[in-house]
Amino acid sequence: MTKVLEDICRIRVKFGETDAMRCVWHGSYVSYLEDGRESFGRRYPGIGYVDISRSGIYAPVYDLHVRYVAPLGIDDVAEIHTRYVYKPGARLDFSYEIYRGRDHALCATASTTQLFIDPQGQLLVDPPDYYVRWQERFLKE
Amino acid sequence: MTKVLEDICRIRVKFGETDAMRCVWHGSYVSYLEDGRESFGRRYPGIGYVDISRSGIYAPVYDLHVRYVAPLGIDDVAEIHTRYVYKPGARLDFSYEIYRGRDHALCATASTTQLFIDPQGQLLVDPPDYYVRWQERFLKE
Amino acid sequence: MTKVLEDICRIRVKFGETDAMRCVWHGSYVSYLEDGRESFGRRYPGIGYVDISRSGIYAPVYDLHVRYVAPLGIDDVAEIHTRYVYKPGARLDFSYEIYRGRDHALCATASTTQLFIDPQGQLLVDPPDYYVRWQERFLKE
Amino acid sequence: MTKVLEDICRIRVKFGETDAMRCVWHGSYVSYLEDGRESFGRRYPGIGYVDISRSGIYAPVYDLHVRYVAPLGIDDVAEIHTRYVYKPGARLDFSYEIYRGRDHALCATASTTQLFIDPQGQLLVDPPDYYVRWQERFLKE
Repeated sequence: MTKVLEDICRIRVKFGETDAMRCVWHGSYVSYLEDGRESFGRRYPGIGYVDISRSGIYAPVYDLHVRYVAPLGIDDVAEIHTRYVYKPGARLDFSYEIYRGRDHALCATASTTQLFIDPQGQLLVDPPDYYVRWQERFLKE
Repeated sequence: MTKVLEDICRIRVKFGETDAMRCVWHGSYVSYLEDGRESFGRRYPGIGYVDISRSGIYAPVYDLHVRYVAPLGIDDVAEIHTRYVYKPGARLDFSYEIYRGRDHALCATASTTQLFIDPQGQLLVDPPDYYVRWQERFLKE
Repeated sequence: MTKVLEDICRIRVKFGETDAMRCVWHGSYVSYLEDGRESFGRRYPGIGYVDISRSGIYAPVYDLHVRYVAPLGIDDVAEIHTRYVYKPGARLDFSYEIYRGRDHALCATASTTQLFIDPQGQLLVDPPDYYVRWQERFLKE
Repeated sequence: MTKVLEDICRIRVKFGETDAMRCVWHGSYVSYLEDGRESFGRRYPGIGYVDISRSGIYAPVYDLHVRYVAPLGIDDVAEIHTRYVYKPGARLDFSYEIYRGRDHALCATASTTQLFIDPQGQLLVDPPDYYVRWQERFLKE
């Protein structure tokens, strides 16, 4: 299971995402990571929101880590690199890099871990079927 | 049905609600109006989110109007005046005034109209039971 | 001054823009209108954020009106139609229609009015130079 | 420098902060941490936004880590515990715990690191004067 699964998407900074320091507010990056995951899910289908909600097994974010390296401003386009990180068990891990379009400066690195919960909100010990099928499809040759 | 039902609540401006013009982003006021409605609903109970979701009859916003008169900045406290506006039929109307705490300047006026939808998303022609009961409790003497 | 200036852009609904009713939260539409204006400004350049901030004459939103007709959900793509509405004086008016991509249903109509303020926050009585030039370029034949 | 500086504040969950999983969207917690820091800054004054912007030395977030343990829902009140973490150098560190008011369940733990930048956006090697004064006032006996 060593294949690299990566997606690159571009989003344009919105005025409402900035703050009084005239750059993008640090909390807005959380939605950029979500943009990255959704774009990744369209490229490697089977673990997107639609699949998740159809199965009733949600995958809420359990751990979020962001490191801010350079600012994004109004009129910037951010390039979000989203990479799947395989870890054994009932978990879904991604690492991210966010670049500024105009000069390719690295603006942020990040990682997220999602766990799986059943409709009663209980944590799953084993990965759900849709995730196992997805791993078999995309991780194996 | 001429009783005035009004609530006043105070919220503190959050840094993340500002934008690159160094004042509160105009879109953030929409959540201030929601703060006002929720506070109103705690004062005149029966039409809050809990009542609504228990009944299955939601009350989504159908019409929103905001007029921006003066800015709110970091460290400002906003005073939200929320007034029920009686209009006949299956609708829920509020008018709002938002004042700046430090100098009582009027910052915004607003109004919202909510309609009622059943669990299938169909508009209700008649007001739902919980709203009729609420009107009988608070509007009549 | 009767030329129609209109832009159409598409945005994808973000998970974080939804609310507990499982559709896009009504406040999120305010940023969709901003997306529409920014896209309009790239098509008809001269009144975008960069021009505005270079001149020091900001154009904050003074009036906002949104009417919600049909919901947008996760995985929906919204098509935002943004049309310039000429009104004489120091004001900038747009009207909007937001459609759901999958079935072209009309989800919302909206309008905004922006006024111009100088660096001291005083309202301008006359339209600023960059706006006059923009009108001369795009409104006249 | 072993004194414990801690603040506890309470915020009410807003409807617009929820997502389609019917709980608070994970990105909304970033603003809760900001609420915690601002409340901390009012209790131990000198490093709040006003002090920071008066000096021209901003303190943007460099590192953010959140771990989500239990959900917050509509009508929940969150209790935010914000603790200053002393680390030598030009940095400002906080750790957080977010509890659910109704049952005191731990919902999230978090930590942030802020660095200092001058008006040109350059990182400061030495802590700014206002922060040194604040440390002398609150950390020493």
